[in-house]
Amino acid sequence: MRKTYLLTPGPTPLPSEVLEAMARPIIHHRTPQFQAIIKEAHEGLKYVFQTKNDCFMLASSGTGAMEAAVANLLSPQDTVITVEGGKFGERWTELCKAYGVNCEVIKVEWGKPVESEEIKKRLKANPRIKAVFTTLCETSTGVTNDIEAIGRVIKDTESVLVVDAISGLGAISCASDAWHCDVVVSGSQKGLMLPPGLGFISVSPKAWKLVDSAKCPRYYFNLKKAKKAYDQVDTPFTPAITLIVALCQALKMMREEGLENIFLRHKKMARAVRNAVKALGLELFAPHAASDAVTAVKVPANIDTGKLVKTMRDTYGVTIAGGQGDLKGKLFRIAHMGYIGEFDIITGISCLEKVLQQMGHKFELGSGIKAAEEVFLQGE
Amino acid sequence: MRKTYLLTPGPTPLPSEVLEAMARPIIHHRTPQFQAIIKEAHEGLKYVFQTKNDCFMLASSGTGAMEAAVANLLSPQDTVITVEGGKFGERWTELCKAYGVNCEVIKVEWGKPVESEEIKKRLKANPRIKAVFTTLCETSTGVTNDIEAIGRVIKDTESVLVVDAISGLGAISCASDAWHCDVVVSGSQKGLMLPPGLGFISVSPKAWKLVDSAKCPRYYFNLKKAKKAYDQVDTPFTPAITLIVALCQALKMMREEGLENIFLRHKKMARAVRNAVKALGLELFAPHAASDAVTAVKVPANIDTGKLVKTMRDTYGVTIAGGQGDLKGKLFRIAHMGYIGEFDIITGISCLEKVLQQMGHKFELGSGIKAAEEVFLQGE
Repeated sequence: MRKTYLLTPGPTPLPSEVLEAMARPIIHHRTPQFQAIIKEAHEGLKYVFQTKNDCFMLASSGTGAMEAAVANLLSPQDTVITVEGGKFGERWTELCKAYGVNCEVIKVEWGKPVESEEIKKRLKANPRIKAVFTTLCETSTGVTNDIEAIGRVIKDTESVLVVDAISGLGAISCASDAWHCDVVVSGSQKGLMLPPGLGFISVSPKAWKLVDSAKCPRYYFNLKKAKKAYDQVDTPFTPAITLIVALCQALKMMREEGLENIFLRHKKMARAVRNAVKALGLELFAPHAASDAVTAVKVPANIDTGKLVKTMRDTYGVTIAGGQGDLKGKLFRIAHMGYIGEFDIITGISCLEKVLQQMGHKFELGSGIKAAEEVFLQGE
Repeated sequence: MRKTYLLTPGPTPLPSEVLEAMARPIIHHRTPQFQAIIKEAHEGLKYVFQTKNDCFMLASSGTGAMEAAVANLLSPQDTVITVEGGKFGERWTELCKAYGVNCEVIKVEWGKPVESEEIKKRLKANPRIKAVFTTLCETSTGVTNDIEAIGRVIKDTESVLVVDAISGLGAISCASDAWHCDVVVSGSQKGLMLPPGLGFISVSPKAWKLVDSAKCPRYYFNLKKAKKAYDQVDTPFTPAITLIVALCQALKMMREEGLENIFLRHKKMARAVRNAVKALGLELFAPHAASDAVTAVKVPANIDTGKLVKTMRDTYGVTIAGGQGDLKGKLFRIAHMGYIGEFDIITGISCLEKVLQQMGHKFELGSGIKAAEEVFLQGE
């Protein structure tokens, strides 16, 4: 017998209710029966996105939804700002360049959030900036950016604010309307407790104006086509039916728990993980802007993170993530996002303690667990 | 109690083994455990595509894979041939135009297959044609095109042959290599017995040469990125994990039955449906090139197909499809594709008989079923 546990920043574990929903016989998508499901999904997404804007579902990963943002808002030779504070910030730049869009790149030291003042300065210097591409939670570093502050800086300009909320949406707050986010992009396999395969994108009235004039080619990700179908409670192409049925189930669970409670739960788990790893003598990668969705942890030079992750996964069945891009080998990441409760955290920390001891790292056995338990005992 | 039955050309019914596979706890995609699954999927796809070429999996519907073909093979201002014999042939033209590619459209009367001689003539007249975009089985009309003959015409030219095999692959033969298909595109929700959400695309060495020079923008659907990941038994972006796990299950079932047996089964079911509807006094829409995957049936003017489809579905739980595009209201379509056996056909025909009688159509009750049973009794 070998039980397995998933503490990765996408995919995240699936509730049995979601698994059950996917195991139902499939139904056809051009039917009133499926239209009822689409409608429920649209309403539920607006709740999670905290928006009145339409939220479109794409049969794609989150990157597909990011491409939809770029291709629908821009024309070749347009200029935009991209914020690069990690692998997924870099993806915005790569995407824009693929479409011939000029990028003013704001390079942020990995592990730190972007300063909204820097964006303000750049926008002032170049009023022709069409859009600012940012990241809510940078999965590769475990940093949360202050989207609210960025929104304040952008809202009275001609630019639109585009937020990659793939990691984070449904785990930490992304108040799309209150924070003046024009386009918010997400994916299914993180806070939404679903398998990967669905991308989401919300579009504000300000952003629709750009869509009208954008000349980048697009077909599968064409948001005007999507809007036409949306208004008829339909999708332009065959939707990922099974995943949308599962989405309704997950959204129902999220409504029952309530967004505020969900965010509090994530806050508590994140604090437990941070305190635990510090108690084990490890250092946080992003101590001042640590995300409540995923925690990145630095390891001493004598610990091989590849081996740590591999042993936890292959010997003990507990999957966490290593570093990505430039951070490969330099850190590990424990996600506490989606369908995760306190005993999942206890399991993860316990396995971490075990393998760290085996690898010769010095600390008092059980001290990580104790630190986590203290957080959980305190309640809110 | 109300049991439901699905006889639509995508989605098609899901085997319980596939449903079960999707209900398994999810695993992370950057692990040796998932690499084993990717490898199995790649091998199985090559078997079903009848090719030695790499077959890429995309998290998208089939249309996404079609877009991948256009964006990766071409540059703006290139000229191609598109064959339009139905709604999905038209999609090739729409896609090419979205990317600024010039189309020489071969318009084929809906319900008829394209003549390979016409393609030959056009290629001779314009040797700068980069690609010919065709459809294996045109879902909207139930027509199968003679891809083998088209391949013979194209193979010694500079053009590449691109086949939309979304409907048909895994139901009727698409011998990619033997027929000289350079790019074959498919989707999960038809012959492959899966939910929608996966697109597939195979690429021949001749097609890779075009990929190298193509200038259309692409990122999410970039096949060079896909190839780099493929060679490392990986995917460039988060894959639709659950659907790929299910794919392996479906491919295993297909290997056990064997492609030849699968094609014979579809042939027999198609013949049973054709004979049944003729026995009911109805007319085939494509009598001379009828597909073994889906049958389109014309109805007398006094029968409202919308009402027919609606009554079968909402009153009796049997979902078939109406007409698409210009054929809306003019025909209905019964699919016999994927996880379909003879008693599914009997169910569909029985329900059709019942509703046709209720709608006042004159025929001997049971005559459709008798015609179908005769086919099934004959065996192969």
